[in-house]
Amino acid sequence: MAEKIKIFDTTLRDGEQVPGCQLHKDEKLRVAAALDKLGVDIIEAGFPISSPADFDSVKSIAEQTENAIVCGLTRAIEKDIDVAAEAVKPARRSRIHTGIGTSDLHVFTKLRTTKEDVLDRAVAAVKYAKKYVEDIEFYAEDAGRTDNEYLARVVEAVVKAGATVVNIPDTTGYCLPDEFGAKIRYLKENVKGIDKVDISAHCHNDLGLATANAISAVQNGATQVECTINGIGERAGNTSLEEVVMIINQHDDLPFYTGINTQMLTDISHLVSEKMRMPVQPNKAIVGANAFAHSSGIHQDGVLKNRQNYEIIDPAMVGANGSSIVLTARSGRAALNYRIEKIGVKLTKPQLDEVYQEFLLLADRICMVDDEDLKKLVGDYVVTNINS
Amino acid sequence: MAEKIKIFDTTLRDGEQVPGCQLHKDEKLRVAAALDKLGVDIIEAGFPISSPADFDSVKSIAEQTENAIVCGLTRAIEKDIDVAAEAVKPARRSRIHTGIGTSDLHVFTKLRTTKEDVLDRAVAAVKYAKKYVEDIEFYAEDAGRTDNEYLARVVEAVVKAGATVVNIPDTTGYCLPDEFGAKIRYLKENVKGIDKVDISAHCHNDLGLATANAISAVQNGATQVECTINGIGERAGNTSLEEVVMIINQHDDLPFYTGINTQMLTDISHLVSEKMRMPVQPNKAIVGANAFAHSSGIHQDGVLKNRQNYEIIDPAMVGANGSSIVLTARSGRAALNYRIEKIGVKLTKPQLDEVYQEFLLLADRICMVDDEDLKKLVGDYVVTNINS
Repeated sequence: MAEKIKIFDTTLRDGEQVPGCQLHKDEKLRVAAALDKLGVDIIEAGFPISSPADFDSVKSIAEQTENAIVCGLTRAIEKDIDVAAEAVKPARRSRIHTGIGTSDLHVFTKLRTTKEDVLDRAVAAVKYAKKYVEDIEFYAEDAGRTDNEYLARVVEAVVKAGATVVNIPDTTGYCLPDEFGAKIRYLKENVKGIDKVDISAHCHNDLGLATANAISAVQNGATQVECTINGIGERAGNTSLEEVVMIINQHDDLPFYTGINTQMLTDISHLVSEKMRMPVQPNKAIVGANAFAHSSGIHQDGVLKNRQNYEIIDPAMVGANGSSIVLTARSGRAALNYRIEKIGVKLTKPQLDEVYQEFLLLADRICMVDDEDLKKLVGDYVVTNINS
Repeated sequence: MAEKIKIFDTTLRDGEQVPGCQLHKDEKLRVAAALDKLGVDIIEAGFPISSPADFDSVKSIAEQTENAIVCGLTRAIEKDIDVAAEAVKPARRSRIHTGIGTSDLHVFTKLRTTKEDVLDRAVAAVKYAKKYVEDIEFYAEDAGRTDNEYLARVVEAVVKAGATVVNIPDTTGYCLPDEFGAKIRYLKENVKGIDKVDISAHCHNDLGLATANAISAVQNGATQVECTINGIGERAGNTSLEEVVMIINQHDDLPFYTGINTQMLTDISHLVSEKMRMPVQPNKAIVGANAFAHSSGIHQDGVLKNRQNYEIIDPAMVGANGSSIVLTARSGRAALNYRIEKIGVKLTKPQLDEVYQEFLLLADRICMVDDEDLKKLVGDYVVTNINS
């Protein structure tokens, strides 16, 4: 039986902290409402201690959200937890996300303390947060570069202290998929009580591996993935929600599912891109403008014969317009004929051959050939053929 | 001993066929010259049969290129091969890249023939191309969805016919990293003569996994990776050159190296983005505008204490400007103080606390706080402190 993978969206926290992405409250509420409709399981709404406006936004998101759990981020500091607890209080279901750095680098050069102290502070934070809410997620910051034995000790201690979810972030995006998967597997096999909680994968994209690392984590026992719309987030960003969801959706060999309404993915991508002023590159997987555009002759011919030759996702499934056949100097006769027929003209084979040579010269010059150009190209044939 | 992974750049072929990316000849020559300086091992310069202008560009690139092998793409068709051979002839070192679809979908619904016929055509194309040049790369199109047993038969036959490189494309970007790695391993273990040739990974990014699949292929025996600058290419694009190169560069646990001059990566990313009119999203790994920008308070504090807390690549290593500390409402005191000191003002702790509260209100309102805003914020303190 397929297992549900929970989608933890952090567009409004890890995404919103990006230079230029800050939203005003009404915009945050609009994005949060869209995420709730999309079907994410958890909305990380912000980092309430960080500023008065962020506190206020988290509180309002907690008030309006109908289905998702609303979560607020904290450091392992009592004041952070007090403020976050106050902010998420109005939610139907609320979560506090607390944690501390566990890698040697973070323990020794950021926190400037000892591993035992970090372990104590981790446990204390979870216990303190537990006074406010039942659902406590603990993050072991820089877990990707934390040695597995110590990480397992920390995770076991916070689970015992009451954490319901343990988040294993690859904070700097350094891990390779097999390495990150092995880390999750190690925790599954070595932490007492691990089967009672969700393991969450929070991956960063510094080396372009965030999505692969998240999927590898799921294959090795993680049951929650932290991600953002369009993969926005600190530096090179986080795991893209749309990529993880569609991988799980399209791979029958992965015995998992999510609660996401995939047909809303394109719209929410546009909403977040626009509100957060973060352009999505045309070659972005799933939601880029070119994700379903075919331009080389070989590909166009193949798609026209059978869409599945070059498409593994029906564009309608993610709410995108149909796949497009774009005419450039790399297009072949099949594509040219398809587009000519679309403007109502039927050519014989010799006519097509002739028009094709002219088309190539034109395309070499102007790059992209549109319907107006086509009408000029087929000029003489139009009169006899149109509407026939 | 570390093994060299050859970088096969297809920016000018798989990248250039993208809607809107078509280049004029002088632009292609400029990009090709930059790729040669970057240190790529092979430049796939185009698809010579596709149009007269593309033929002409490939020929000129062959003439000018000093170090890289210059390669032209063909279908498994004699006329394609004749034209490509003519185009790459002026190169110091030239390669013909020929091939045919091998998945059931491609064999039955695109080529509309039999598997035996495809095998025969594959062998015939390699033998035919061999008349012109020694270095022949064969692609098994849609190898990602081709059953391994048949794929191994095709690969063995073309190696026997004289192919020097076998390209295993995941044409539709469907494979998961472990699955794609296992496919390469299967070929390494089951194809007679495979150790005499390079196995090449040509991955597409439809599910966001192109980079991970290419790395998994390398871990399992591939010795060549096909990629493009900024990951451009059909639909969601190809493996990003900069990602693969930096993963291999930064992971000591991967016993591989490339010949790429990493300090040129940022400049060539800008060149390709500008010439091909393909924006790079700010959160693109390695070359995005935000790839080394830190904005949350926790991260900024950590980076100021030790860069490595949140950075796994020194920006200078890829030719980027230094990492940046951007001031938003998610920034903390450490970052604020750092930026205030950079404008020449030294505050006491109580002064900083006071300015920080005002800073947060301002940042909640205007999103990003720059040096001019800072000067106004620290107003009264400037007189006594500046240049002190």
